[in-house]
Amino acid sequence: MTGLFVTFEGGEGAGKSSVLREVGQQLKEEGYPVLETREPGGIEIAEKIRHVILEPSHTAMDGRTEALLYAAARRQHLVEKVIPALEEGMIVLCDRFIDSSLAYQGHARGLGMDDVYKINEFAIENRMPDMTLFFDIKPEEGLARIEANKGREQNRLDLEKLDFHEKVYEAYQQLVERYDRIQVIDATPSIDKVVESAYRTIKPHLPTRML
Amino acid sequence: MTGLFVTFEGGEGAGKSSVLREVGQQLKEEGYPVLETREPGGIEIAEKIRHVILEPSHTAMDGRTEALLYAAARRQHLVEKVIPALEEGMIVLCDRFIDSSLAYQGHARGLGMDDVYKINEFAIENRMPDMTLFFDIKPEEGLARIEANKGREQNRLDLEKLDFHEKVYEAYQQLVERYDRIQVIDATPSIDKVVESAYRTIKPHLPTRML
Repeated sequence: MTGLFVTFEGGEGAGKSSVLREVGQQLKEEGYPVLETREPGGIEIAEKIRHVILEPSHTAMDGRTEALLYAAARRQHLVEKVIPALEEGMIVLCDRFIDSSLAYQGHARGLGMDDVYKINEFAIENRMPDMTLFFDIKPEEGLARIEANKGREQNRLDLEKLDFHEKVYEAYQQLVERYDRIQVIDATPSIDKVVESAYRTIKPHLPTRML
Repeated sequence: MTGLFVTFEGGEGAGKSSVLREVGQQLKEEGYPVLETREPGGIEIAEKIRHVILEPSHTAMDGRTEALLYAAARRQHLVEKVIPALEEGMIVLCDRFIDSSLAYQGHARGLGMDDVYKINEFAIENRMPDMTLFFDIKPEEGLARIEANKGREQNRLDLEKLDFHEKVYEAYQQLVERYDRIQVIDATPSIDKVVESAYRTIKPHLPTRML
């Protein structure tokens, strides 16, 4: 594989999705082949799994069922979309990946990060991200941004309490300690500045032979 | 928990589903509280997952995605239906459970029994069956029974399938060696005799306080 697999991680309202688009745009303008994606990424099977996860009437959904479904959708998106793009030498920018499951299901839902890691290891095999950007913003600040931007439709996960999002944040801090592949990006400044930090962090890892 | 969790396992045409119904009927006539079930068992979330697995248009379904989806449906059926019944002290007779995934996805599809065990361990936690009946019949004999019901000759595709079913059988043999909870029932005689063997195997494990 000759591409570069970069994942974007963080809590709600960290701005990572907007930053991903901007960074992707910048790289494309420089001539790099870029795939911007997020699970389920338009992959039919993964979309259907996602629909089962997010259906608001599924109040009986067990936490472990949910974690297994996320791992299943991840697997399908990875084999149908991410790996083929990497094999073509593309830079894949992916909005959320394994660390989201470790933080949300593993730590915040209390299933245990190690156990959730095991099912994701089964899903991903050896295809871990080459690098991961963690967009660092305190949960109350991130949630306040979402509040200010209420046009966005809320799903079952947005409705969780602040306490839940604080656990998510705590988990990401632990993951930053654990994995060298994770780089911390200060997500509190204006979006232009955050985009610049993200771009500068990725830049040295881009294969020079691409241009 | 005061109930008894019994799973029925075996290849195609072993007759386990018919035997399960007969044994369940017999136990109910003796006054035992019995739940006869099989995944997804009418549990809405599990039914929807099953639908994603079995949808014929999903030809791009990866083997690992499928295994994760089976584990997810298993989890939901377990927590919504099996565990509550066991907590009420019922005898739960379940048509297929973890061993089917180990045999079909783990061994026959080549994902590895140990890896498939890990994701199922996550799904089941400590709620392994109290006992498992393996209905032992050679794959060619089991498939011949199914053929006899269909009234048609075997073709090339059926023979290709035989190889798959032989792997399933091989896997069950390994599981019988590995787990003390698995009892082998000779599935070659007439159904009445197989029902009697199954009944006699379960009988000593029934909590006497139930009657």
